[in-house]
This record gives sequence, C-alpha cells and structure tokens, in this order.
Amino acid sequence: MAQYNVAPLEKLVDEFEKMPGIGHKTAQRLAYYVLNLSKTEAEALAAAVTEAHSKIHYCSRCCNLTDKELCPVCSSATRDQSQICVVETPRDATAVENTREYKGVYHVLHGAISPLNDVGPDNLTIKQLLKRLGDGGVSEVIMATNPTVEGDATALYISKLLKPMGVRVTRLAYGIPVGGDLEYADEYTLAKALEGRNEI
Amino acid sequence: MAQYNVAPLEKLVDEFEKMPGIGHKTAQRLAYYVLNLSKTEAEALAAAVTEAHSKIHYCSRCCNLTDKELCPVCSSATRDQSQICVVETPRDATAVENTREYKGVYHVLHGAISPLNDVGPDNLTIKQLLKRLGDGGVSEVIMATNPTVEGDATALYISKLLKPMGVRVTRLAYGIPVGGDLEYADEYTLAKALEGRNEI
Repeated sequence: MAQYNVAPLEKLVDEFEKMPGIGHKTAQRLAYYVLNLSKTEAEALAAAVTEAHSKIHYCSRCCNLTDKELCPVCSSATRDQSQICVVETPRDATAVENTREYKGVYHVLHGAISPLNDVGPDNLTIKQLLKRLGDGGVSEVIMATNPTVEGDATALYISKLLKPMGVRVTRLAYGIPVGGDLEYADEYTLAKALEGRNEI
Repeated sequence: MAQYNVAPLEKLVDEFEKMPGIGHKTAQRLAYYVLNLSKTEAEALAAAVTEAHSKIHYCSRCCNLTDKELCPVCSSATRDQSQICVVETPRDATAVENTREYKGVYHVLHGAISPLNDVGPDNLTIKQLLKRLGDGGVSEVIMATNPTVEGDATALYISKLLKPMGVRVTRLAYGIPVGGDLEYADEYTLAKALEGRNEI
C-alpha cells in the first residue's frame, strides 16, 4: 500500500516505531494521537523532546542526569556525601531513591562491564568514581549494580580497585524477595539466601 | 521525591504519559530513550511531530488525512470514484485498504453519532458526504462504520439521508470471523451469521 501513504504521517510512525517496546500498531496510535493534539500541545511535545535532549547532561560529580552543574542529590546539603551508592543506570538510582531509605549519594556507571557487547571498564564512569575517592571524604561505597553476570563482574572489578584505597566496599544483599514464595524461588537465589542467613 | 526531579526530564515523561496506552514506567523508558539519541535523531523526532501536525489536514473530498489537496486514493486514476466506503476513522480506511480487495474511494466521518459523548451528526463530515453525492457520479455507498451501537446508529442515520437520493446503500456483512470458533462466538454475532446465511 506504499503508494497510498501520507509521507509526514509515515515518518512520524517510523520515529515512534524506533522507540523501545513500541510496535507498528502502537506507533500508529501514537501518531494519530499527535495529529489530534492542538497546535500548542504538539509544539509542547516537540519542545519537550529537544529541550530534554539539549539541557540534560551528566552531573559533574556523580554522572547522574541533570540540567544543572550538579544533580539535586549531589547539591543537597542533607545527603551524606561520605556514602556512595554505585548503580548502572539513572533509573536504578531512581529505584533506590524510591525506597526513601537511602541518605547517601550516587555514582552512575552508565552500563556494566560486558565483553560480549564491547563494553569495557573504560566505557563506564569508573575513572570519575576513582577521582571522587581520591578527593577523600568517602567512607563507604555500596555496589548496587544488577544481580546479573555483568553486574556482578562490574561490582567485583570496581571493588578490587577500591580496596587498596582503604574504603569500605559493600554489595546489596541477595536473597528471597519480600512477599515471594520459597517454592518458586530459583535455586541460585535460594542458595544465596541460605548463605546470607541472619540471626533472629 | 519531587525535590530530586530533573525538570526537563520530568516534563518529557509527562508528555509521553499523556499518550494513549503509555503508563508512567513506559513514559520513563521512552524519555531515557530520547536522552540516549544523538542530537540529529532527537531533532528528527521533534521535527516529525511538528511537521506531521502542521502539514497533515483533511482531504478536501473524502476528509481522510493527507498532506496534499486531495488524498492519494481520491487523486488516483485507477480507483472507482462511483463507490464510496464510509468509515469512522482514517485507521478504519487503512484497515479496509489492507484487504487489497477494495477498489473504490472512501469517506471518513471522524467519529460516530454518540449522544452520550456529545457527538451529533453535525460533528461528523456527513455534510461533505451529501455534497459528494449531490455532485453526482456515485452509484454505491458502503457503510463500513464499526459494528457497535454508535456505528450502527450512524450507518442507519446516513442511509436514511441517502436513500431518497436514489443511491444504493450497503452495510458490511455481520458474521463469524474467519478462523473463529462457533463455540466462542457471542450469541448476537451467531444470530447475525444465521440471519445472513448464504447458499453454497
């Protein structure tokens, strides 16, 4: 049906289809949604895209996303700057933030070491993390990378670099999830939960 | 966690969240996708939004979406201009088009009569349809509105207007869907399939 396409509409559908988790039908629905917007609304959407892209960059300290020199967490006077939580992505930092339990600061690696995907230590923000520790004042680094092969390897790699600097390096606890069911826990998780058992 | 938000990012997430079928998590994923685009790609996305919105309007004959004076179907020399398929939305026209069986032209109503949603005949493009019939040369109007209460009411309303003009008005056949299972067909569909049975 290529001969009956409306070019600007198809282009918009194509752009939406490139997005993660958006198939052709959803892309079409989104494109029709855009067409039904008022002129102001459509311009607001386009402006939000360009603005977010041009204004947001890495925090000069923790490499999280921000539109200022320092991100809100790094520039907060109430956060404990001596405790650094190392995460893979900004979304992981948000997840930790949403627990409302963590009062320290973050360091965002922007990935994990993965030789298969051509991601080595130099592609991550490890250098910046080492610089922060070199500046002093850090007492603990919590490795909160994902519980995957890549996340574990990255945590191990970084901990080996940090240990000689005399800083305490910890890792998030593995175990059965709250509200989970032992019957359905996989054997690795259950083994880790046994290994890390606590006195009650 | 409002105090730790990054304004342009939150704005973009909000814009995506307004879209149909997009929840907060998906909106976040789309926003991070935009941030990871190159400058050129982000600008292409924003341009596609504004361009589609500013360039696309209704075809002056069939009210389908187009960026020209006439849509590709109306301006095609190979389409039968004497047969008009009346649909509710541009997407419905695309659905009929995808059958590759229909050689006539379309008329897009942009909705269906629905008193509950404050949509009356005047909110649809019925006037334009009557004008097309007044111009002559039309032998058949196929009502392809949705098989819903609103779609049926709209089809009935329009057919009553058209009958006195001496034009043949038809409706899409109701029946069991191809590949469907009698056991799972609802009673209304099955009753309609019985009623519309054909000699074999």
